[in-house]
Amino acid sequence: MEHRREALYEKGPVRPAHPAEKKVKPMPPPLKDVVIVGAGFAGLSAAKELAAAPVTVTIIDRQNHHLFQPLLYQVATAALTPAEIAMPIRHILQRQRNAEVLMDRVVGVDTKAQSVTTESGRAVPYDALVLATGARHSYFGKDQWAQHAPGLKTLSDAFGLREKILMAFENAEMVVEDDPEAAGRFQTFVVVGGGPTGVEMAGAIAELAHSVMRDFRRIDEARNRIILLEGGPRVLPAFTEDLSARARRDLGDLGVEVRTDTMVTDIAAGRVTTDQGEIAAETIVWAAGVQASPAGEWLGIPATNNGHVEVDATLRPAGFENIYVIGDTALHRTGGSALPGTAPVAKQMGTYVGRRLSKLARGEAPPHEFRYSDAGALATIGRNRAVADIFGLKVKGFAGWLLWGAAHIYFLIGFRNRLFVMLHWMWLYLTWQRGVRLIMHRDTEDEDKAP
Amino acid sequence: MEHRREALYEKGPVRPAHPAEKKVKPMPPPLKDVVIVGAGFAGLSAAKELAAAPVTVTIIDRQNHHLFQPLLYQVATAALTPAEIAMPIRHILQRQRNAEVLMDRVVGVDTKAQSVTTESGRAVPYDALVLATGARHSYFGKDQWAQHAPGLKTLSDAFGLREKILMAFENAEMVVEDDPEAAGRFQTFVVVGGGPTGVEMAGAIAELAHSVMRDFRRIDEARNRIILLEGGPRVLPAFTEDLSARARRDLGDLGVEVRTDTMVTDIAAGRVTTDQGEIAAETIVWAAGVQASPAGEWLGIPATNNGHVEVDATLRPAGFENIYVIGDTALHRTGGSALPGTAPVAKQMGTYVGRRLSKLARGEAPPHEFRYSDAGALATIGRNRAVADIFGLKVKGFAGWLLWGAAHIYFLIGFRNRLFVMLHWMWLYLTWQRGVRLIMHRDTEDEDKAP
Repeated sequence: MEHRREALYEKGPVRPAHPAEKKVKPMPPPLKDVVIVGAGFAGLSAAKELAAAPVTVTIIDRQNHHLFQPLLYQVATAALTPAEIAMPIRHILQRQRNAEVLMDRVVGVDTKAQSVTTESGRAVPYDALVLATGARHSYFGKDQWAQHAPGLKTLSDAFGLREKILMAFENAEMVVEDDPEAAGRFQTFVVVGGGPTGVEMAGAIAELAHSVMRDFRRIDEARNRIILLEGGPRVLPAFTEDLSARARRDLGDLGVEVRTDTMVTDIAAGRVTTDQGEIAAETIVWAAGVQASPAGEWLGIPATNNGHVEVDATLRPAGFENIYVIGDTALHRTGGSALPGTAPVAKQMGTYVGRRLSKLARGEAPPHEFRYSDAGALATIGRNRAVADIFGLKVKGFAGWLLWGAAHIYFLIGFRNRLFVMLHWMWLYLTWQRGVRLIMHRDTEDEDKAP
Repeated sequence: MEHRREALYEKGPVRPAHPAEKKVKPMPPPLKDVVIVGAGFAGLSAAKELAAAPVTVTIIDRQNHHLFQPLLYQVATAALTPAEIAMPIRHILQRQRNAEVLMDRVVGVDTKAQSVTTESGRAVPYDALVLATGARHSYFGKDQWAQHAPGLKTLSDAFGLREKILMAFENAEMVVEDDPEAAGRFQTFVVVGGGPTGVEMAGAIAELAHSVMRDFRRIDEARNRIILLEGGPRVLPAFTEDLSARARRDLGDLGVEVRTDTMVTDIAAGRVTTDQGEIAAETIVWAAGVQASPAGEWLGIPATNNGHVEVDATLRPAGFENIYVIGDTALHRTGGSALPGTAPVAKQMGTYVGRRLSKLARGEAPPHEFRYSDAGALATIGRNRAVADIFGLKVKGFAGWLLWGAAHIYFLIGFRNRLFVMLHWMWLYLTWQRGVRLIMHRDTEDEDKAP
């Protein structure tokens, strides 16, 4: 049984002809099967760039959907629904006839046999391999913090956090008259990390907290506390000092306490300890660090502390002719400094590799080195404030927010999502409502009949 | 600790004044605290009707949201998102100052002490109690069928089914070349029960199956089978024969095999056995019977086989002065025949009880007996077909579908939901896309870093 399965992807007479192959004229071998692992921004961009190339593209992901991670925090704060920021990979590649999607999980790479091994026991052969496997949060070795301070990388992370935040208000309402201290813990939200994710998350929680208050009868809005902790001297360290200061002021206006120069030393249930003292909080969100996926291990090469694989100017790790590592998994240095793990970097890397492989497959000269074109950075703070530093232009406040919204909607893959996200946001803006405040886990736990 | 919690809801000096109570002039006791268990159509209607009454309304539900169950099958078939058919109960009752929402689970009723006991250890006192706890599926004593043939009552039921249906296609695509028989099982969908739920579900699965086919490369649409099984001689037995026949023809046009006079005798993994033979199918949906919630047990009175509590013309079970049972939990006979478990029945019962309690609280004469006003019945079959029998008018085909859509959108609670459902449907109609085809469970299972 198992060997028959593998035959599906093995070369030789057993292998079924792919529809795309019939149209393509037979080419002298070098490059025919391109395998891309991961359908994030990097992997998808590479796949799309290969649409017209004389190759077969197999894209492997253990999820069936591409996720627009930059807006994940909006799902966690009940502003958007999952379907608005996610789309089935098959659907995105529906019209690309040379692309095939495999929903499976990669467990290793056999670089000698040139094949990728998956959890279901397949061996998917490649002539060129693109690893675009992304990153997860990193707790700097304190993995025991993870259970108390979840991060935000997948839809289920976002669901879990949404549930935790919404249940915090339910719980506070329930105990406030008997145990005001416990209620205070439920009404306190700590976000660890003052980068764009942390800033956006803190602003969004502050707004959510404000907007749900009307629905409760007993708890007091004045007791809501949203605290943003940052180890360095200012939030958004990648931005200019001016924009950092503006972001801090905007956060303050929303009711977020920003504490810079504050190092977290311990996290336990209901409590964050810092070098400045202790904070009692039931909801703690981790936005302080990421860890690349184990692509380095698969290749048997050393990775950095954060699991990144260092790549050269053509996005290949040293010593590999036909393997590319891109997106959040890659460490690419330009003039000494590493490129950040952002969506624009991932997209541009994917496009570069796709173009390079297209050229190679056609027997043409490959493009020159990868060069990142930095359009700038954007971060939003709540409902109508943002800071943006785009093409050297610094924009703040409402204008920044409009720019931020436009940029994100523009980058959302798929017209449906763009349309609905836009409508949904307009709606939220006009009404201050959060439509997606559903707590769903409870009916998973017990399936019996009582409400 | 526990006794302090209870104090919250106990009468006497400890009990905090409710905001609404300050405005209301003190009344001579009989009816002050109304407790409603369950925030479905029945419970919410009762609560809303009590908005202007001199009472405190406490509505208890273990979910935080009201669910528009008639459209749940559209979440299961990836046409709507959960947020479009669910809304936080607190939000619905936000402006009703005499209403309080308690997210907790009822475990019993102490009719002597006149209080409701909850899972978290509370005792919520009542002067009048309204039980509107709904129903779950019933397998006629074959509970072991449940795991293979899930029904559809909650959001998590709908999630589970959506995932099962979408994964069926993924699995079929994976195995079709090695094991066509297994692929056939994955491409076969059986719906048990030919009432409105079963008919709507079968039509929706047929459409979903058709629309996802474009995204797959290997499986063949001609091998998709959607089979609807009905024990009686026709589908939609509550409709006229004419409309039944039309529904059957419409289902046939969508590619659904309708098998009437077919009794299911056994259900196991991957297999349904009927008195007419066996069907190999990985996805089996149960739409054949419901079982009321255990309200009868709480009251210590005998319920019917299906757990229904028989009520009199004022919707009270015999022997209870101040307890009402309404909605799917109640068995109410009019002229010998029982009212069906539908949303209109539940709403009208809720409104009646709310009005009755309002009058009693004001010391006025209560209204006459409950009388159900039957507006008719509606069922949709796929994208632009429906059968409707409304106010004696029989409507079929596209006109029926428009009527069906209008009626459902009209009844959706909350303007946001109405607007978005309408936009979403227009979008689906224009594009034949299913936007919500997300498989989410996989990232709950394993939290590590590989994609």
